[in-house]
Amino acid sequence: MKMPSSMYGRIKQYVPMLEWASVYNSNSFTSDAVAAIIVTIMLIPQSLAYALLAGLPAEMGLYASILPLVAYAIFGTSRALAVGPVAVVSLMTAAAIGNLGLTSPSDIALAAVTLAFISGVILIAMGVLRLGFLANFLSHPVIAGFITASGLLIAASQLKHILGVDAHGHTLVELIFSLVDHRDMINPITLGLGASTLAFLFWVRKGLKPALLNMGLAPRTADILAKAGPVGAVVVTTLITFLFDLSSHGVKIVGTVPMGLPPLTTPSFSPALWGQLLMSGVLISLIGFVESVSVASTLAAKKRQRIAPDQELIGLGASNIASAVSGGYPVTGGFARSVVNFDAGAETPAAGAFTAIGIGFAALLLTPLLFFLPKATLAATIIVAVLSLVDFSVLKNAWSYSKVDFAAVFATIVLTLGFGVEAGVSAGVLLSIGLFLYKTSKPHVAEVGLVAGTEHFRNINRHEVETYPNLVTLRVDESLYFANAAFLQDMVYDRIACEQPIRHVVLMCSAVNEIDMSALESLEAINHRLRDLGVKLHLSEVKGPVMDRLKCSHFLNDLTGQVFLSQFDAFQSLKPQQI
Amino acid sequence: MKMPSSMYGRIKQYVPMLEWASVYNSNSFTSDAVAAIIVTIMLIPQSLAYALLAGLPAEMGLYASILPLVAYAIFGTSRALAVGPVAVVSLMTAAAIGNLGLTSPSDIALAAVTLAFISGVILIAMGVLRLGFLANFLSHPVIAGFITASGLLIAASQLKHILGVDAHGHTLVELIFSLVDHRDMINPITLGLGASTLAFLFWVRKGLKPALLNMGLAPRTADILAKAGPVGAVVVTTLITFLFDLSSHGVKIVGTVPMGLPPLTTPSFSPALWGQLLMSGVLISLIGFVESVSVASTLAAKKRQRIAPDQELIGLGASNIASAVSGGYPVTGGFARSVVNFDAGAETPAAGAFTAIGIGFAALLLTPLLFFLPKATLAATIIVAVLSLVDFSVLKNAWSYSKVDFAAVFATIVLTLGFGVEAGVSAGVLLSIGLFLYKTSKPHVAEVGLVAGTEHFRNINRHEVETYPNLVTLRVDESLYFANAAFLQDMVYDRIACEQPIRHVVLMCSAVNEIDMSALESLEAINHRLRDLGVKLHLSEVKGPVMDRLKCSHFLNDLTGQVFLSQFDAFQSLKPQQI
Repeated sequence: MKMPSSMYGRIKQYVPMLEWASVYNSNSFTSDAVAAIIVTIMLIPQSLAYALLAGLPAEMGLYASILPLVAYAIFGTSRALAVGPVAVVSLMTAAAIGNLGLTSPSDIALAAVTLAFISGVILIAMGVLRLGFLANFLSHPVIAGFITASGLLIAASQLKHILGVDAHGHTLVELIFSLVDHRDMINPITLGLGASTLAFLFWVRKGLKPALLNMGLAPRTADILAKAGPVGAVVVTTLITFLFDLSSHGVKIVGTVPMGLPPLTTPSFSPALWGQLLMSGVLISLIGFVESVSVASTLAAKKRQRIAPDQELIGLGASNIASAVSGGYPVTGGFARSVVNFDAGAETPAAGAFTAIGIGFAALLLTPLLFFLPKATLAATIIVAVLSLVDFSVLKNAWSYSKVDFAAVFATIVLTLGFGVEAGVSAGVLLSIGLFLYKTSKPHVAEVGLVAGTEHFRNINRHEVETYPNLVTLRVDESLYFANAAFLQDMVYDRIACEQPIRHVVLMCSAVNEIDMSALESLEAINHRLRDLGVKLHLSEVKGPVMDRLKCSHFLNDLTGQVFLSQFDAFQSLKPQQI
Repeated sequence: MKMPSSMYGRIKQYVPMLEWASVYNSNSFTSDAVAAIIVTIMLIPQSLAYALLAGLPAEMGLYASILPLVAYAIFGTSRALAVGPVAVVSLMTAAAIGNLGLTSPSDIALAAVTLAFISGVILIAMGVLRLGFLANFLSHPVIAGFITASGLLIAASQLKHILGVDAHGHTLVELIFSLVDHRDMINPITLGLGASTLAFLFWVRKGLKPALLNMGLAPRTADILAKAGPVGAVVVTTLITFLFDLSSHGVKIVGTVPMGLPPLTTPSFSPALWGQLLMSGVLISLIGFVESVSVASTLAAKKRQRIAPDQELIGLGASNIASAVSGGYPVTGGFARSVVNFDAGAETPAAGAFTAIGIGFAALLLTPLLFFLPKATLAATIIVAVLSLVDFSVLKNAWSYSKVDFAAVFATIVLTLGFGVEAGVSAGVLLSIGLFLYKTSKPHVAEVGLVAGTEHFRNINRHEVETYPNLVTLRVDESLYFANAAFLQDMVYDRIACEQPIRHVVLMCSAVNEIDMSALESLEAINHRLRDLGVKLHLSEVKGPVMDRLKCSHFLNDLTGQVFLSQFDAFQSLKPQQI
C-alpha cells in the first residue's frame, strides 16, 4: 500500500532519522563510529559522576546514557548533539528530589525516573504545540548567570567527596556551613587522593595538550588523549584503592554496580508525586532545552546547517521518556560532550546510537571493575568539568551595557547560590520579564523637530532642529498598551500645561507597533481633553497593522486632527503659513 | 519653633487635608454639608446591603462607613470620591473569607477586620514605595470584563434572599445549582416582597426621574428624590414586615443591630491567617485602587483638577486601616456614590467627613428601627445597583478591535463566573501580560523601500516603493529584547537565504526602543554570519538612548557596515551607483 506523500512528509517531519538514514553510507559510518568511541570514553566517568551529583546510584548515570541516545538519534535534528546526563540538570534533579524528603533508595530512584518521564511529557507537549518560543523568555544573561552559579554550587557540593566528609545542602551557604561543621572528620587519605586527582585533571586540561603537541603528536590525537584524562584518573585511582585496600581506611568507593543492560522501569503515576515534581519538571525541561538548543545551533551553524527547535523538543522529550523507562534520570544535550562529538567528526545522529552501544557494553562488562572506584575521583572529574562553566564576565559586561540586565543576572546568581537552583532560575526569568514590563510601562518620549534641509525628525534635546511654538510633536518610543496607557495621558497633559500657544499636538507613531484597547481608550480621552482646550490631535507615521486596527474603531471619526503618512507632511501642513 | 519649610512641604504632601483646610470657608461648608446629607441617605441602605453581600453582620457595613471616610478626608486627594463599602470589594471579601472555612461569627468578623488591615498596609506600602504604576498592569478591557462578571455574580448571589432560600456558592454555576436544589423551599411571601421591591427600584431608576420632571420639579430635586428610592423601599418594607408580622411567616429580617458608635477592634496578627489572606488582600487592594482611581480621575478632570495616584494609595490605605480598627471591612471609593457626591456639589473631602457624622448618627440612633428590615429589600437594592455595572459591550468592542484583548476579557469573564472573583481577575492580569509578551516575542517585520519623490520609507507589500536587488532594508517593529532575540536571527537568516545578489542588509531601527544584552548578542551573531557570507550589516535611524547603549559595547567596532542617521542616507549611500 502506498502511503500518501503528505502523510509521509509529516512522519518525516517528526522522525528526522528517516531523512538522514536514507542517504547513510560507509563514509558517514566510519566518521560516526570514531566519534562514538571518543565520546564513549569521555562519557563513562561523566555518567557515573553526574549520577552521584544527582544523588542517585552510579548505574543510573550509565542507564541514562544508553536508550536516551538512541531515542535522540531517531527524533532529534542536530547532527552533533551528544545527549545524556549533564551537570546542571543533575544538580536540578538533586534539588527536585531533595525537596521530597525521601530516604528509601527505591523511592528516590522512582522519583528520578518519574521526573525524567514528566520532563519528557512536557518537552513533547511543547514540541507538538510549537511552544519552543517559550525558551526565548530565558534571557541570555540570566542563563549565563544561572550556569555560572550552578557551576559554583556543583563544585561546592562535590568538595565533601574530596574531603571524605558527609556534608549536605542545596545552597552555597548550607554547603559551606555543613563542610565547616564536619571539618574534624576530614579523611586525610581521601583528601590526598582527591586533591591529587584534581591537580592531575587540571593539568590534563591546561598542560597535557601543549605537552603532547611539543612531543610531536598530531593536534587531533593530542586532543583525544587529553579528553581521555578522566578515564586515566579513573583507572589509576581505582587500581591504587584496590591494591592498598584504601576503602578499609575510610576512602568511600562506588561499590557494587549491577552488571547488565538497563532494567525496564515504570514511572510513578501518583498525582501527589506529579504535583510535587511538576514545577521542577518544567524548569528542568526549559533549562535543558535552552542549553541543548544553544549548543546544537552553534554547532549546526558551523556547517551551515539549521536545527528545528520545535522538533528538538520532541527529540529531547523522547530521550527523557526513554530514560524514564530504562532506569535513567533527566537528560539533555551536553555542551562539552557535543563539542567533542563534533570535533571528532560525527556526521549524523547515528554517532549517538553508536555511543549508546559503547555504554551498553560498559554496563554489560565493565561494572565489576568499578567496585573500587573512589567517589573522590568522580567528584574531581565533576569539579574540573563545571569550573569551566563558571564565568563571571557576564556580570561585568551586563554592568557596562545595561543596568537592567545586570540586575537580572545579579539576582539570578545570588538567588541560585543562596536559595538553590530552582529559586535562582525562577527569579531570573520573572525579574527579566518584570523589568521589561516596567521599562515599557514608562516609555521614552522625545519631543522632535525637523533636521534642517532633510525630511528627518530628531529629538529637540539632542539635535539642532526646527520647531514652531504652535506645534508640538511627541515621538513615543514604545508600543502603546495597557501598562503605559495612563503614562501616555499624563505625558501629553503635562506637555500642554504651559504658556505656549499650542494649537496642534502630533503623536509621531513610527515606534508604535501596537495600540491595544486600553491605549485606544487613553487616546480617545486625550482627544477629548485636547478638544476642550481647543487643541487638535494628529497622528503621523502610523504603521500599516496599527492603522488597520484603528479603522475598526470610532477613534478616527472622532479625531479632531488628521492622520499623516509622514511626519514631514504633518510638519508642512501644520506649521504657521508664512506670507 | 518654626518648622523647616521643606519638612512642612513633605508633611503637606502626605496630608493633603492641610492644603484645602487652610482655605476652607462657609461656602465650601454649605456645599459639602448638602452633598453629605444626600450621600448619607444613599449610603445607609447600601452599607447594610454590602455587609450582607460580604457575608458579615449588617452593622459592619455602617462601621465601614464612618472612620474610613474621616481617614480618607485627611489623607486622600480626590475632592469628590465617596469611600466606603462597595459591591465588588464586598464580593471579593466574601470570597476571601469563604476560602477560610470559618463558621463562628466572631472568627468571621476578625478575618474581615484583618483583611481590611492587610489591604491598608499593602496600599500604604505601595503608596510610600510609589508603586501606583502596578495598577496599570490591569488592562482596561480586563477590568471592564471583571466588573461585568462580578456584577452578574453579585446579582446571582442575592437571588437567594429574594427567593427566601438558603443557597450558597462562590461561582455562577455553584449558585445556580444551589438555587435549583432549593427550589422547593421558596418562601412565597419573601418572593412577593422581594420581587415588588425589585420592580419598584427598577422603576425608580428608570421611570421616577422623568415622572418627577414631568411634574415640574427642578432636575436636581428630581435627581435627589430618585436617589432616595432605596431609602423609601427600606422604610416601606420594614413597616409592612413589622405590621403584618411577616418574620413569623419565614421572611428573613436583619434582626438586632447593635446600637452605638463603632467598637475599637484589633486585627489578628496570626502569621497563618495573614498567609491565607495575603493574596486576597493584594487583589482587593489592586482592584479597589483601580476602581477608585478611575472614578476619582474622571471626576477631577471635569473640574480641571488632578489627583495624585501614589497619594491616593495612602488615602485608601489609611481608610482601610481605620476600617480595621473600628469594626469594618475592606473599603474603597464607590462609583455611583462618588458621582452622586460630585453632582450634589461636594467641594472638598470634608463632605466625606460630614457623611461619616451622618452615618454615625444612624448607628447611634436608627439601628433599632432596622430590626424588621427584610433581607430581601437589601438584596433588591444590591441587584439594582450592580446590574448597572453589567455591560457586555466590552466583549463586542474588543472582538472588533483586537482579538488579543478579546481573549483576555473573555477569559476574565468566564473564569470569574466559573471559578470566582480571585481566579478571574488573576487570570485576566496574567493573560494580558502573557499575550503582550507573546506579541512582542514575534514582532512585525516589514521590508521597506523608498516612497518615490520623498525621503520616506514604507512596507514594500503595502506601498509602491523603490528598491534595489543588492540592498535589503528590514524595519523591525519592536524593541529587541530577550524574548525576540532568537526570532530576529531567524528572520534575517531566512531573508538572505535566496538567489538575490544581496550585498547590504540595513536594519531600520526607528521602532526599536531598546536593545538588551540578549538582542545585542543576536546582533553580533547576525553580523558574524553575514560577514562570512560577504554581506554587510548596517543600522539606520537608531534612537539616541539605544545608540548611547551600543557605544558601551564592542558591537559598533565589529559592525561590518555603518550606522546611518536616516534611512534615506543609508539608501543613497548603498544603492548601486549609476554612471
